[in-house]
Amino acid sequence: MPAPNLLYAQSGGVTATINASAAAVIETARKFPARIGQVLASRNGIIGVLREELIDTGLESAEAIRGLRYSPGGAFGSCRFKLKSLDQDRAHYERVIEVCRAHDIRYFLYNGGNDSADTTHKLSQVAQTLGYELHCIGVPKTIDNDLALTDVCPGFGSVAKYVAVSTREASLDVLSMAESSTKVFVLEVMGRHAGWIAAAAGLAGSKDGDPPHIILFPEVPFDQARFLAAVKDAVGRFGYCTVVVSEGVKDAKGRFLAEAAPEMPSAMCNWAAQGRRLPRWCARRMATNTTGRCPITCSARHDTLPARPTSTSACRSEWRR
Amino acid sequence: MPAPNLLYAQSGGVTATINASAAAVIETARKFPARIGQVLASRNGIIGVLREELIDTGLESAEAIRGLRYSPGGAFGSCRFKLKSLDQDRAHYERVIEVCRAHDIRYFLYNGGNDSADTTHKLSQVAQTLGYELHCIGVPKTIDNDLALTDVCPGFGSVAKYVAVSTREASLDVLSMAESSTKVFVLEVMGRHAGWIAAAAGLAGSKDGDPPHIILFPEVPFDQARFLAAVKDAVGRFGYCTVVVSEGVKDAKGRFLAEAAPEMPSAMCNWAAQGRRLPRWCARRMATNTTGRCPITCSARHDTLPARPTSTSACRSEWRR
Repeated sequence: MPAPNLLYAQSGGVTATINASAAAVIETARKFPARIGQVLASRNGIIGVLREELIDTGLESAEAIRGLRYSPGGAFGSCRFKLKSLDQDRAHYERVIEVCRAHDIRYFLYNGGNDSADTTHKLSQVAQTLGYELHCIGVPKTIDNDLALTDVCPGFGSVAKYVAVSTREASLDVLSMAESSTKVFVLEVMGRHAGWIAAAAGLAGSKDGDPPHIILFPEVPFDQARFLAAVKDAVGRFGYCTVVVSEGVKDAKGRFLAEAAPEMPSAMCNWAAQGRRLPRWCARRMATNTTGRCPITCSARHDTLPARPTSTSACRSEWRR
Repeated sequence: MPAPNLLYAQSGGVTATINASAAAVIETARKFPARIGQVLASRNGIIGVLREELIDTGLESAEAIRGLRYSPGGAFGSCRFKLKSLDQDRAHYERVIEVCRAHDIRYFLYNGGNDSADTTHKLSQVAQTLGYELHCIGVPKTIDNDLALTDVCPGFGSVAKYVAVSTREASLDVLSMAESSTKVFVLEVMGRHAGWIAAAAGLAGSKDGDPPHIILFPEVPFDQARFLAAVKDAVGRFGYCTVVVSEGVKDAKGRFLAEAAPEMPSAMCNWAAQGRRLPRWCARRMATNTTGRCPITCSARHDTLPARPTSTSACRSEWRR
């Protein structure tokens, strides 16, 4: 009687480490041939399971699997197709069990976030109902560090480092030219509901005056007056101000800032709006040059006020400050 | 008679290597104490020279100077203040000579791009006219690889690597999910007049099918029909399409695409527009999901067409493709 097989599927947006998780699953399974037979991976996530498009990872060399540890992207493809409740999507769940039965799969490892963990749980319930023994395990994955009941979230560390380094490097660029150019710099990061990524930007500094000077979280209602005062204070004390804003920041009424501010001229209400709006808004209210940038969601705008050529006025008025 | 002094100034936007150039200047000067006395650096570039705000780099340890080799930002500050023609700005040029004379400066090293090289040249002419011996040397700096008469442009290599790596990594992410999600990915890079940075993205691939599949240059007039056909072809053959577009791409009439297309809904005519417009435009014409992103100028937008939930339709219609 050969050992039962394992099915691995990637789910949701891929992170910097989802392939490292894939490598871990495959390499570990290969250590227990008496307990785990083939390690199959579905092509493009759960869609591949439903279509019965399964990849035999046993065809890959140990070196190729080890290389996954440092490979970006999702090696087997992924999708955002979410199975709904058991009542609404029973046919899909039963199809998954049918495919598992056809390939003697007794271990199902679903590599994704909270939704995927929920799907994994529902699948185990369906398997039990149908009398098919199937060990369903969620392999955690997220950039948001917000997985339920999970202490370590693979994917978060990489984005935390990226955001902190980007904050520090970009701030050094701004500081280099703040005397005569951009003084307020807005960096927008992901995190629709959780401020962990925004908080990670705080790793960029260690002492008073280090950037970021302001971090705007989804969990803290945006206070316009307090924000402007903080920006002015930082510019006054340090010569510039770095603001890190989460895409999910909300106003006091709970509306996402990306959608809630009609007086902000941009009609594009989308998630990557803070990086553009906040700088322009600061520029108008504070009569200063601002730049917005989002290396993660990648939204930026450089706002300069044409009536204030600060560098030339500083030089033409007098030689000394 | 002590050796004459050297004045070093940083100019324009700082690059990843401007501090490496600063380190090279200082370390080299320190090797020739009989010929070069103090190495002074002006604070915030040419503004600092005009204000006579000079930093004595001799106060820094060898280790601190060596550390500049890998330091981002501009250690002494920089500005974009450009001295105009000799007729228009004579007072400024004469002020620079006055400051040099006051500090026994006989070497002026100006670390910047084409404009700074021009200023350096004009300064040498003024010095000659005033009978003050001053060796004026331009130290090259650019990300655009477009310095006149210059073979190696410090600053370009770093951005070339960054753009190539970003193109490859982001494309892997897109490819991972292209089956049911984004199929057209637009990456906007800098280069208002020169396409070197966009060309560097081409380093990301080596064989047919590797991204980027399309590069749009400032030097090549944008052809709408040809572009769409190329996008469709890539999606058809490879499942997705990565487009790298220079911020300076122009239409057949020579107008910057960022400004020339009224039918494109965004009213924000700025340099970072391609990363938003092209995807939306592609999405409408091709009925496909697109994402725009600019890690350099940082402008992005994720466009999805709400009427086409591709992942669910692929699964509900039938199990097999």
